[in-house]
Amino acid sequence: MTNIKITVEYDGTEYCGWQLQENTGATIQNKLEQAVSRLNKTQTRVHGAGRTDSGVHAHGQVANFELKVPIPEENIPLAINSELPPDIVCHKAQKADPDFHARYDARGKKYCYRFSNNRFCSVFDLRFVYNIYQKLEIENMQTGLSTFCGRHNFSSFEASGSEVNTSVRTINSIKLERKENSFFNSKTEFHLIIDGDGFLYNMVRIIVGTLIERGLGKINSSYKEIIESKNRHQAGFTAPAKGLTLLEVYY
Amino acid sequence: MTNIKITVEYDGTEYCGWQLQENTGATIQNKLEQAVSRLNKTQTRVHGAGRTDSGVHAHGQVANFELKVPIPEENIPLAINSELPPDIVCHKAQKADPDFHARYDARGKKYCYRFSNNRFCSVFDLRFVYNIYQKLEIENMQTGLSTFCGRHNFSSFEASGSEVNTSVRTINSIKLERKENSFFNSKTEFHLIIDGDGFLYNMVRIIVGTLIERGLGKINSSYKEIIESKNRHQAGFTAPAKGLTLLEVYY
Repeated sequence: MTNIKITVEYDGTEYCGWQLQENTGATIQNKLEQAVSRLNKTQTRVHGAGRTDSGVHAHGQVANFELKVPIPEENIPLAINSELPPDIVCHKAQKADPDFHARYDARGKKYCYRFSNNRFCSVFDLRFVYNIYQKLEIENMQTGLSTFCGRHNFSSFEASGSEVNTSVRTINSIKLERKENSFFNSKTEFHLIIDGDGFLYNMVRIIVGTLIERGLGKINSSYKEIIESKNRHQAGFTAPAKGLTLLEVYY
Repeated sequence: MTNIKITVEYDGTEYCGWQLQENTGATIQNKLEQAVSRLNKTQTRVHGAGRTDSGVHAHGQVANFELKVPIPEENIPLAINSELPPDIVCHKAQKADPDFHARYDARGKKYCYRFSNNRFCSVFDLRFVYNIYQKLEIENMQTGLSTFCGRHNFSSFEASGSEVNTSVRTINSIKLERKENSFFNSKTEFHLIIDGDGFLYNMVRIIVGTLIERGLGKINSSYKEIIESKNRHQAGFTAPAKGLTLLEVYY
């Protein structure tokens, strides 16, 4: 029996998020457990690093499971993919320490939120990019962005009803980048890239919603004031899931 | 009554191509005629510049129709889009000469075929990029590519069973470009961009299939030899529809 660490990419559009759920539609964990269980010929649990929400995507989700059959390390991704739908792809697999756990051992994560600011939402972006139709003042979104960095109580950016011991998290870096689309040169999109030791429920999407409301002139408070208020009502709306991608998990 | 020229973008994945068909699934023309007919409150024909196949996409498809209600030019795209599914978007509309016809007046078209050459097909590319798993020798695909330019009989690159008067077409330019994906820097894709006065049935996809078979070492004949043979069997396979996008129509 070998503990295997895998890196997984998925288009979350058609799924009810990562986590196994009863009486709902398919989840990513569900599809992965089915695939791995077929290889092992016995029901096998897959532990994921982060429980992405319904509609959220991943480029570098990490998971681990016990492999009970002899498959060479380099063939594991192909073996798993042959049992997966095309919108979930395992692109890396490696042997891990017997006690490695994708979730408990994770030291941090990096997310990307993609948005555009066009009169029309491109059909090529429909699944992965959130388009804002009204004009955004990108500079207003940038101003004071680095305030998010460091160790703060982020309860202003935490969805109500979540039950965690503490709302204190450390953000290592946050940046808002303008990207030219490689397909049609005329198109521009924006990426909010954020990296931290952990994220509260909906935290990235509420941060993005706050940036957008500042860009629209609906919020005038500084990010510092919003953080310090520890009040969810001071922050912006929860930006839609479809723009969010889990890029990487750190160990 | 005003003749309106529109530019339309669509994700062809869910459609049976452009052209109206009986007893099949939805088509792009079908959806556009429904939308425009609802605005006009009477059944209205929409003429498209090119009949894209099932699964083929468009960034700059052009069409025209008679507008019978007074809508300001700049509001036409929003009015049409409000009646369309999100995977079809009209992004431009302008008044045209009364005798303008999107198909008969077209002087040429530009297409892009997107492909990648990775061990795994990225979930973010699933709808628009064709992935080749075996290693491609891109230089072999490039060699002699300019032979396609000019006026030639392209019957080697014409799907069997098509009924046209002549297989002679003029290619103005053809290029194979390496593009870095703007989202994940580690990813590369290739674009074949081809521009000509007209294209035979499946012509771009057969040209791409021929390039790919040269890249795989399955075809050793030069493009010149294949063109001159006027023999469909000398060319490669028909590359999948999903990689193809109609970029622009010239008038």
